[in-house]
Amino acid sequence: MKNIGEYMIITVNKNIKSEEFLDLEHIINNKGLFLKEIDSEHFLVTGDTYKFDEQSILVLPGVLGVTRIKPTYHLVSRDVKMQDTIINIGNVKIGDGSLSFMCGPCSVNSEEEILRIAKGVKESGANILRGGAYKPRTSPYFFQGLGEEALKYLKEAGEKYNLPVVSEIVDSKDLDLYLKYVDIIQVGARNMQNYELLKKLGGTKKPILLKRGPSATIEELLMSAEYILKAGNPNVILCERGIRTFEKLERYTLDLSSVVILKKITHLPVIVDPSHAVGNYNFVSQMALAAIACGADGLMIEVHDHPVESVSDAFQSYKLSKLKSLIEKGKEIKEIINK
Amino acid sequence: MKNIGEYMIITVNKNIKSEEFLDLEHIINNKGLFLKEIDSEHFLVTGDTYKFDEQSILVLPGVLGVTRIKPTYHLVSRDVKMQDTIINIGNVKIGDGSLSFMCGPCSVNSEEEILRIAKGVKESGANILRGGAYKPRTSPYFFQGLGEEALKYLKEAGEKYNLPVVSEIVDSKDLDLYLKYVDIIQVGARNMQNYELLKKLGGTKKPILLKRGPSATIEELLMSAEYILKAGNPNVILCERGIRTFEKLERYTLDLSSVVILKKITHLPVIVDPSHAVGNYNFVSQMALAAIACGADGLMIEVHDHPVESVSDAFQSYKLSKLKSLIEKGKEIKEIINK
Amino acid sequence: MKNIGEYMIITVNKNIKSEEFLDLEHIINNKGLFLKEIDSEHFLVTGDTYKFDEQSILVLPGVLGVTRIKPTYHLVSRDVKMQDTIINIGNVKIGDGSLSFMCGPCSVNSEEEILRIAKGVKESGANILRGGAYKPRTSPYFFQGLGEEALKYLKEAGEKYNLPVVSEIVDSKDLDLYLKYVDIIQVGARNMQNYELLKKLGGTKKPILLKRGPSATIEELLMSAEYILKAGNPNVILCERGIRTFEKLERYTLDLSSVVILKKITHLPVIVDPSHAVGNYNFVSQMALAAIACGADGLMIEVHDHPVESVSDAFQSYKLSKLKSLIEKGKEIKEIINK
Amino acid sequence: MKNIGEYMIITVNKNIKSEEFLDLEHIINNKGLFLKEIDSEHFLVTGDTYKFDEQSILVLPGVLGVTRIKPTYHLVSRDVKMQDTIINIGNVKIGDGSLSFMCGPCSVNSEEEILRIAKGVKESGANILRGGAYKPRTSPYFFQGLGEEALKYLKEAGEKYNLPVVSEIVDSKDLDLYLKYVDIIQVGARNMQNYELLKKLGGTKKPILLKRGPSATIEELLMSAEYILKAGNPNVILCERGIRTFEKLERYTLDLSSVVILKKITHLPVIVDPSHAVGNYNFVSQMALAAIACGADGLMIEVHDHPVESVSDAFQSYKLSKLKSLIEKGKEIKEIINK
Repeated sequence: MKNIGEYMIITVNKNIKSEEFLDLEHIINNKGLFLKEIDSEHFLVTGDTYKFDEQSILVLPGVLGVTRIKPTYHLVSRDVKMQDTIINIGNVKIGDGSLSFMCGPCSVNSEEEILRIAKGVKESGANILRGGAYKPRTSPYFFQGLGEEALKYLKEAGEKYNLPVVSEIVDSKDLDLYLKYVDIIQVGARNMQNYELLKKLGGTKKPILLKRGPSATIEELLMSAEYILKAGNPNVILCERGIRTFEKLERYTLDLSSVVILKKITHLPVIVDPSHAVGNYNFVSQMALAAIACGADGLMIEVHDHPVESVSDAFQSYKLSKLKSLIEKGKEIKEIINK
Repeated sequence: MKNIGEYMIITVNKNIKSEEFLDLEHIINNKGLFLKEIDSEHFLVTGDTYKFDEQSILVLPGVLGVTRIKPTYHLVSRDVKMQDTIINIGNVKIGDGSLSFMCGPCSVNSEEEILRIAKGVKESGANILRGGAYKPRTSPYFFQGLGEEALKYLKEAGEKYNLPVVSEIVDSKDLDLYLKYVDIIQVGARNMQNYELLKKLGGTKKPILLKRGPSATIEELLMSAEYILKAGNPNVILCERGIRTFEKLERYTLDLSSVVILKKITHLPVIVDPSHAVGNYNFVSQMALAAIACGADGLMIEVHDHPVESVSDAFQSYKLSKLKSLIEKGKEIKEIINK
Repeated sequence: MKNIGEYMIITVNKNIKSEEFLDLEHIINNKGLFLKEIDSEHFLVTGDTYKFDEQSILVLPGVLGVTRIKPTYHLVSRDVKMQDTIINIGNVKIGDGSLSFMCGPCSVNSEEEILRIAKGVKESGANILRGGAYKPRTSPYFFQGLGEEALKYLKEAGEKYNLPVVSEIVDSKDLDLYLKYVDIIQVGARNMQNYELLKKLGGTKKPILLKRGPSATIEELLMSAEYILKAGNPNVILCERGIRTFEKLERYTLDLSSVVILKKITHLPVIVDPSHAVGNYNFVSQMALAAIACGADGLMIEVHDHPVESVSDAFQSYKLSKLKSLIEKGKEIKEIINK
Repeated sequence: MKNIGEYMIITVNKNIKSEEFLDLEHIINNKGLFLKEIDSEHFLVTGDTYKFDEQSILVLPGVLGVTRIKPTYHLVSRDVKMQDTIINIGNVKIGDGSLSFMCGPCSVNSEEEILRIAKGVKESGANILRGGAYKPRTSPYFFQGLGEEALKYLKEAGEKYNLPVVSEIVDSKDLDLYLKYVDIIQVGARNMQNYELLKKLGGTKKPILLKRGPSATIEELLMSAEYILKAGNPNVILCERGIRTFEKLERYTLDLSSVVILKKITHLPVIVDPSHAVGNYNFVSQMALAAIACGADGLMIEVHDHPVESVSDAFQSYKLSKLKSLIEKGKEIKEIINK
């Protein structure tokens, strides 16, 4: 399937000593790769260059530069597997050309609440229920989640309304809990490069929803996914949720171009979470529809619940009623772009 | 019309000397504004605070900080004018709820070429013709444009196919040429903060297409528009074209959230130019449709022309044929989001 | 000690309903804080506002905006503790006005190598030995470190040359190993927001070196330190190591202004790691000296060891000999800025 | 002098048609460059590749990618001229290994004030006087400068105290005024890519101080300098003044690594303006000294003058007295790093 060779170009000092050059060649060959001369200062490296760390070559005496022509990710690439990866979660499929909607509250605050919201989510046409149990909060003074209790309520609500559930893991020690209670394990943006966690998730077959870190490049997101695939788990869903920029009126800048680029270079499904980027729930629907126009395989949307029960019904139900219309419009846009 | 007051909060040292405080109050009052005590360390400034430069207060002895509650832009704000500004260019209206498509080549390279492309642009359903005459190029070694000759050909092509034309101005000395030849004067991203140019454009009534600089904040874009409005020209169209971020696989990151935010806070029309952001013509259509889903009033799209005439017909016409389908899909998406 | 009050300003809709307003006031009061009217649309919140999550107020009906005048960090702030925190590690003190130099190889590759380098580090005048045992690598195909074996060699080398040692932890399950083998536990940039790890480290009294994430704001770095202090461990050293920007010729942009700002607002020591930012060992010394000119309490510097033993001696010892001169120059600059 | 060849690598589709390939070769050869085959998909372009716009190759049918091994700047590079460029302005030399200090008020507000400040600047040991005449302000409501009157006062003050003067030009129509009144013409960050202005300045021999735009890459700064050199003026001084990042506690992030990188790749002098970056005059001295430690050839520092004459003497003279100490410390640090 792999039809494009891997390449790196090494630039050496034109006065490189012969023992320095032999040393360089020795290291390259030891990895099963080959040096091919372009001219006296430039050499092509062919073979599985993704295994190679530029830094380890750059420090060699006589070497001036290393230019990577092919990126370092591998198993996640369409060069290795052309066909779209389809994730199966019960009756739900992600990545098969359909649209998935993962909706629910930011955190699971009570059994009653999550049951009530799950009902609304189902009736709105969404097909997956989300809800936080362990919340990674910037401040230690903010609510950190109900933990296992929340996972139980979430599973109960999912089963009652026939919705697979997704929740974020924040420590590898909780893996067994997540294997037991949830259908998709989310790795949040802050843990995208927690490689020990990724390796452990790679040891399961559970679908993993991997969110892009707020300053991760697209290539780094793919490398994190590569950790999971290399460890044996092919069921990874990528998620764009906004990157950090200088713009002050946005919490994060939703990078919708990344969806188009990712769909081009990887076979993994790509979804978008517009809830946290703009930082204003009034803007979620536009960004959600735009994500679909860009070719996203689905959306993760927080359904905000009013924090004070007795007053909040109008506020909350407004949001749920908006969800149904949003999902319908999203499906219509999907049809248009598929023409 | 203006229904929200302007506010700033000044934090002073709790040991501020009385003469320092009188001095502060004097400066505030001299601008026609008022200080209102919150407590011994915090004072509210009410009135037209947009006229006030925080820096000039921050340097005062005894002052610890200045927090602006209301932004510095004014005439461009919906606080001052609620109704959408509609720009009229012959039969074309921008900002009235319809979609505009400004299409054409990056630069006008010959009379024949621009006539040929204009024909295709018209047949594809676009309503405005674009084409560069003076090109601001990063390198002095790259093609800098045909200048006035290009403007003449552009006008000729526009008249032949009944398309208003837009082209970028790069120096205020060329203003008379632009007033003569074009219907919309574009200010490129690199000149967004060329305030002398903005003041001169503000002295005309010609519609101005103002592009956001690659590292300009939304507020700075609005302040640049404010320069034009303050000088007397209300006909400004804003344009998002991508901001600079750390992402290496994108030339610029198209900030579509800015469209939603701008439509909320300003009455000026907002269009999107997806051509330069992603840096790959294959991705233009998805980003263009996403821009419409976000509520953009129109699109500016470069129709790429093959640089070598004899070979390029197939390549070029492929792009023009894609344009028609893109415009149709764009209009269908507009209908869906307007429901 | 705390001499500046905490403030937030809440902007409400001027047509806010009375039950909405009572609801807002109820929530504020429940946290032990108070609402004070500025005018009909603006209210001041006084008290321990750092406990308050803006988002939980922003979602309330009738609320238009929340402006935080005081930041959300607390224990780390000079408002709470004016005097510099001094970290004691054996004979070494960090934060007492002296300069610390934490030097050593990127990773511990063998017993012999770390002993050899430790000797050079000691002779160069550095006072702390660094070396990686578990390496968080972007690619799963790159060397991941020797693990516990590396920690043993590091401790051995540190004891032989009377140098306290520092190494990076990558998973909370390894905490006991780190408590046993190292004197300072490093939290790498990628784990700066691994809050579960931070909480566990906060349960010990071991000095923690907390690196700023490549896209973390200064406030977020302080909030992560706050997690450790709140959990009971006051021994935190902050470390600037470069942030992600659009500049392509730098791996990261070393943000030296952050040192000046941090020294102003927090009592914790601040060091700088220039090794990874510029991405070129030739530039390390200039940035290291600049960090000292900015007031850093110390430096962490990778001493690069040639990967091929037999050829690399010249290359490596060159670097170690540079270290001595660098440390001497650094101390001279420190004297000048202290005048 | 040029001792490193220029290179680009073109990746073509392995099924590229022979007429497509001939077309590509024709275009390359027409520019005086050559294609050399690496393998069936990769070709090396040798010759003056800085004249080549990647985009014009990327749009060719059959071409998949273009990798530039050498950058697009040329005359500014040490590849073309190894020796440092030294700018002579009367008795002052910039770039000869000495330190220059360009100091003065943000804007020239009155004859009396600039004379008073010039005296202090001279007595503090600075060797160049700065002062704004035309101020590019983000808001049209803020003070825009005294114009020609300010230039006259500045020249008068410079002559009285034997200080060459520098001031910012904001429109090419003012060039004659600047040629008459100032010794160094400053191009501000906002005009760094105002190429028409750069071409005109390149037509003179006046020293030009070119500031890096807040989101300009180092390569783009060099390309803007290239415009001036190519037009015939070799007297360009580069200036780092902070780039836009996500960090909210800094107005701009002073990128001191850029100084080290620039000194390596260009022969032009490099100075640093720390005044606007941190946004707090208390932090200027540390960043100024750090800039010297990085190898800067000089500093531009705003001496803040109190806006209210009658009260401000103490405040202002405090700043001027700090300047003398800063300059002395700066010179001592320069001596240390030169050892």
